[in-house]
Amino acid sequence: MDLAQLERQARGKLEPGAYAYFAGGTDDEVTAAANPAAWRRLRLRPHVLRDVGEVSTATTLLGTPVSLPVMVAPMARQRLGHPDGELATQRGAAGSGALAVLSTHATASIEEVAAVAPDAPRWFQLYVHRDHSLAEGLVARAAAAGYGAVVLTVDLAVPPNRERELRTPLELPEGVGLANLPPLAGEDVRERVGSNFDPSLTLQTIDWLRGLSELPLVVKGMLRGDDAAACVEHGAAAVVVSNHGGRQLDSAVSTAEALPEVVAAVAGRAEVYVDGGIRRGTDVVKALALGARAVLVGRPILWGLTCGGAAGVRDVLEGYREELERDLALCGVPTLDQLSADLVAMPGRLGT
Amino acid sequence: MDLAQLERQARGKLEPGAYAYFAGGTDDEVTAAANPAAWRRLRLRPHVLRDVGEVSTATTLLGTPVSLPVMVAPMARQRLGHPDGELATQRGAAGSGALAVLSTHATASIEEVAAVAPDAPRWFQLYVHRDHSLAEGLVARAAAAGYGAVVLTVDLAVPPNRERELRTPLELPEGVGLANLPPLAGEDVRERVGSNFDPSLTLQTIDWLRGLSELPLVVKGMLRGDDAAACVEHGAAAVVVSNHGGRQLDSAVSTAEALPEVVAAVAGRAEVYVDGGIRRGTDVVKALALGARAVLVGRPILWGLTCGGAAGVRDVLEGYREELERDLALCGVPTLDQLSADLVAMPGRLGT
Amino acid sequence: MDLAQLERQARGKLEPGAYAYFAGGTDDEVTAAANPAAWRRLRLRPHVLRDVGEVSTATTLLGTPVSLPVMVAPMARQRLGHPDGELATQRGAAGSGALAVLSTHATASIEEVAAVAPDAPRWFQLYVHRDHSLAEGLVARAAAAGYGAVVLTVDLAVPPNRERELRTPLELPEGVGLANLPPLAGEDVRERVGSNFDPSLTLQTIDWLRGLSELPLVVKGMLRGDDAAACVEHGAAAVVVSNHGGRQLDSAVSTAEALPEVVAAVAGRAEVYVDGGIRRGTDVVKALALGARAVLVGRPILWGLTCGGAAGVRDVLEGYREELERDLALCGVPTLDQLSADLVAMPGRLGT
Amino acid sequence: MDLAQLERQARGKLEPGAYAYFAGGTDDEVTAAANPAAWRRLRLRPHVLRDVGEVSTATTLLGTPVSLPVMVAPMARQRLGHPDGELATQRGAAGSGALAVLSTHATASIEEVAAVAPDAPRWFQLYVHRDHSLAEGLVARAAAAGYGAVVLTVDLAVPPNRERELRTPLELPEGVGLANLPPLAGEDVRERVGSNFDPSLTLQTIDWLRGLSELPLVVKGMLRGDDAAACVEHGAAAVVVSNHGGRQLDSAVSTAEALPEVVAAVAGRAEVYVDGGIRRGTDVVKALALGARAVLVGRPILWGLTCGGAAGVRDVLEGYREELERDLALCGVPTLDQLSADLVAMPGRLGT
Repeated sequence: MDLAQLERQARGKLEPGAYAYFAGGTDDEVTAAANPAAWRRLRLRPHVLRDVGEVSTATTLLGTPVSLPVMVAPMARQRLGHPDGELATQRGAAGSGALAVLSTHATASIEEVAAVAPDAPRWFQLYVHRDHSLAEGLVARAAAAGYGAVVLTVDLAVPPNRERELRTPLELPEGVGLANLPPLAGEDVRERVGSNFDPSLTLQTIDWLRGLSELPLVVKGMLRGDDAAACVEHGAAAVVVSNHGGRQLDSAVSTAEALPEVVAAVAGRAEVYVDGGIRRGTDVVKALALGARAVLVGRPILWGLTCGGAAGVRDVLEGYREELERDLALCGVPTLDQLSADLVAMPGRLGT
Repeated sequence: MDLAQLERQARGKLEPGAYAYFAGGTDDEVTAAANPAAWRRLRLRPHVLRDVGEVSTATTLLGTPVSLPVMVAPMARQRLGHPDGELATQRGAAGSGALAVLSTHATASIEEVAAVAPDAPRWFQLYVHRDHSLAEGLVARAAAAGYGAVVLTVDLAVPPNRERELRTPLELPEGVGLANLPPLAGEDVRERVGSNFDPSLTLQTIDWLRGLSELPLVVKGMLRGDDAAACVEHGAAAVVVSNHGGRQLDSAVSTAEALPEVVAAVAGRAEVYVDGGIRRGTDVVKALALGARAVLVGRPILWGLTCGGAAGVRDVLEGYREELERDLALCGVPTLDQLSADLVAMPGRLGT
Repeated sequence: MDLAQLERQARGKLEPGAYAYFAGGTDDEVTAAANPAAWRRLRLRPHVLRDVGEVSTATTLLGTPVSLPVMVAPMARQRLGHPDGELATQRGAAGSGALAVLSTHATASIEEVAAVAPDAPRWFQLYVHRDHSLAEGLVARAAAAGYGAVVLTVDLAVPPNRERELRTPLELPEGVGLANLPPLAGEDVRERVGSNFDPSLTLQTIDWLRGLSELPLVVKGMLRGDDAAACVEHGAAAVVVSNHGGRQLDSAVSTAEALPEVVAAVAGRAEVYVDGGIRRGTDVVKALALGARAVLVGRPILWGLTCGGAAGVRDVLEGYREELERDLALCGVPTLDQLSADLVAMPGRLGT
Repeated sequence: MDLAQLERQARGKLEPGAYAYFAGGTDDEVTAAANPAAWRRLRLRPHVLRDVGEVSTATTLLGTPVSLPVMVAPMARQRLGHPDGELATQRGAAGSGALAVLSTHATASIEEVAAVAPDAPRWFQLYVHRDHSLAEGLVARAAAAGYGAVVLTVDLAVPPNRERELRTPLELPEGVGLANLPPLAGEDVRERVGSNFDPSLTLQTIDWLRGLSELPLVVKGMLRGDDAAACVEHGAAAVVVSNHGGRQLDSAVSTAEALPEVVAAVAGRAEVYVDGGIRRGTDVVKALALGARAVLVGRPILWGLTCGGAAGVRDVLEGYREELERDLALCGVPTLDQLSADLVAMPGRLGT
């Protein structure tokens, strides 16, 4: 799967500001670049002479069966890429048996997205605003519409410094408004986040959110073992190791670097997922070998969506599946539960 | 804050020799390049789910309250960049609530600079000449004019080898003479330093200087823990980890590398500051997390001064503040005293 | 020996698809590039003042005397490079006293190749198809034709993802059909491997193959000590540390990284060979110092074959011999059995 | 001192083959490039507040006083660079108070070189030919002409593979014949070395050479502690850590990497020198801090010779002196005997 080529193709179709918004990171984009580089730098130590006549990528996510351990990350304003936006993404994910996470900043409503694939697994990503009644409403709607979990994003306490976006501003066209929120103060994204997002989230926020519904809570956006352990102790069912794709704190550790300490701290008490720079089946193998149960993929889904709508999304997910199946076979590991950390060679052995 | 863009803009305004003088380093400029690279290479391990509704960048420097832990470094001949030179810099710093350090090689007098912002915090940087009566006079004037500390620079025992300056010589225009010194022997900078600077400074120099006034003494220009500890034992109130911006001994360790050993050796007995290559709010976070109480910034101030005078200086300082506030929030650390070394991930984990 | 120049020359003669097929790797070609880089990064610690008046590169491979510890790796469809294909390669190897390994995917028959140099040492490489009678037939023919060992390739359980080949497809010309196999299902290489290769090889496959003939069994394609030890315990006479030239699992460890753990695990119970990126006499010295008994060379042989047929193959092998003789002398090691691991300096000492 | 500029200037004056001969290394020139890079990568930890009013670069080499710890390395056929060749080099060295080593492959005679500066310190470098009477004659002549030591080169057992020279062949002009040797068999350098050099030097060669004269013996060309210790135990007065400027065994360890283990193994029983890539005063400081008593410099001397004859050689040596004096002062170390290993920061601290 040639994702670099797909990105070039999508870039050709997108308004420059939209491409900058999708592709960019914060400050000097050090972390945005470090994420894929960190996965790539890890080396695999494959097994041979194991029967790989039958390979399966199936797993469960908080008990829900999925056909592959690759989720669609929550991403804002997908109608910038394709007129069908989140509806197409959900269709593509459902077609591939993959779980999709819908963003609070979606351009389609919670209910519309649920309707396009009622039986497909899907979760709802939540930003908590200063006005807590907004979160209450969103969680209630997600629960009613059959979403299987709430994914609370915790790494956006304040608006980031995305200089690429400042150099190539996004002019929001018609039809990409936020479908699930009332009109809020703030001229642009920075102001809207700064004025409306609650910068005072704490572990008590987890307690409160757990009380809003029966849905399990996934906490997304941590890079430290101690933070992850605290979330689990407050009842998080899963955590996502993430630096928001390098779009929040620049020079934050890459997710490949952070994953092992989070896995160790969680110690099996919750599921651990990871996102950021996962571009190949071998990256998925590495993440799962290091203890993640699944990965989330963001920008590649946007390139698929931009170039081909629902079919484009499905093609990207099927590309991950095809690569993952092949790579599992080449690693001598026919099922995901047989992946173990010794498949990954830490770099630096012999200095290479 | 796009400092690279600001530097390009300033370069367009400066006479080539002046730009080479401001921007250059010594020999092959290995250390000048290593300084910013070393900060950038460090990775942050931010906390999440901490209340960052109120973030403060305020601190004190030797007991003097300042609004942010970023000082204006002492820099020579600022009228090369702007007709108002050090007067504009002091105005800009005062406007931002930041402390500015005036260089012995200023092109405005100690008293003039004090007059533009009588209440603003400011320190005086001292070069010691072979004729010790010069230092005695300068210290007395600084004390009389309300400067709060003497910053003794100790890393200029002999003139450096700045090959960039030799290739692009600076022709001193009218009006950039040294306002606080009598005419001294020596055709150019090299000769003047070589003929006039005292190459025999020792720890006894600290004892002598402390006797000249009531002002606390800051010793600037060390890269080793043992040297720093000796200064503190001779009564230094603070030390500055510095390699003179890579302008003295090329291939000296970067300041990010040297900071931890100095912090450990000083062991809380004095304040520790650091300069060299600090270009982002995240760099400030890293320096303070590793034990510095504040940082000094040099070249970016010159680019602001060149492009916009006092307002340009203030814009740069406000840029640091804005980034620092955001980065503290994104690190989950609302006040500077909560920064600790475990926010910094040493590179090399997983080889990344 | 300027192999980069030879490759450029060969590239000029080859149809682009054939060059992509010979030169390419899998996915992003990370491992294909890492192989030569890993050897190059190792440093030698030569001895001086040792008598190197007589230097010998002679050794034995499973008891068979050869004039140098460089074997011709098994490579498919050599008639893409030269009309005489594998026949020329065998002639060139024989002329140099080197052992050549014939691929199951040869374009000349097992018997024809044997006939061109009846007394030269040669081994037969085996792919095991789902139809096990094919392997039975191939092994019987190899034994009857005087091949000295069977080299079982175990790292091609499923077809790889060679994106370079997809971008520059190979159109198979007349005359490069597989001479030793019946027509098999599958339009292209991917399909043929996927449909026909047995993905269920295990250690029992070794037991079965050992029973098919008296020939010793070499297992090729491992990167882990545990896998190598298991093969030896099932009777393998030798193992080849290999990642298939970076053509199977991308981001697999380089062979230079993997060699030491395999040597340690085999512990002298079998011979260990290594391939992948060995381009200089010094690379051969490093591999043998780290415990390999011999190396296999692939792509450089193809460039020699393409440019000069049998003579070109012999020139490449003689180039390795000339470099190896010189490098042994410059290391102060006149015979191969005196090579030891302390000739290799692990990188990173002094950070260099 | 801008040696890169000087090299460009010399390159413009030299016939391309002569430049390739002077500048090139062996194989891929990995070691030739690694030598300067390894020094540059080391970082200095300078002291401050030490009295450096008087700095001295003076030392002794085997008891002979010299004004700086930088020797002229033995280099062949210097008349390729300048009509006065070795005579000019000796004049330049004498003018600078530096010791020069004359090569066996000089284009001026042992006696002529001695005559140009009878009182200047100078040593004679020896290649041992198969015909040992040649060495006997050379040593006798060197002793008679007042050379102070014999420098035996031990890393040229066989001719190297200098591919740059093969691509840009040197056509020897008139007047650059070897002045101290009889006509010997061999068309070109490779053949001459291969046919005439003794490849069987051992520790006994040291014993034999020591008996030929009263001159102390320096053994040049080792990279290992064990080899150095053995030479010292056989009576070597000094050893030179050297890889022949990267011109013999490519991918040999850089000399900066090898120096510490040689210093440790020699343990003060002999003097240790080092060459290879020393291009700055800071490199000299690093080498001496790590335990070398002096360094040898080669190619920069050739560039000075080519551009300016004796004056050019002296300018280069004075450039090293000027940089070394400055760098010692900036390190707070006024005399060479106060240099110690803790001035050097091993790379990798904080990953930088």
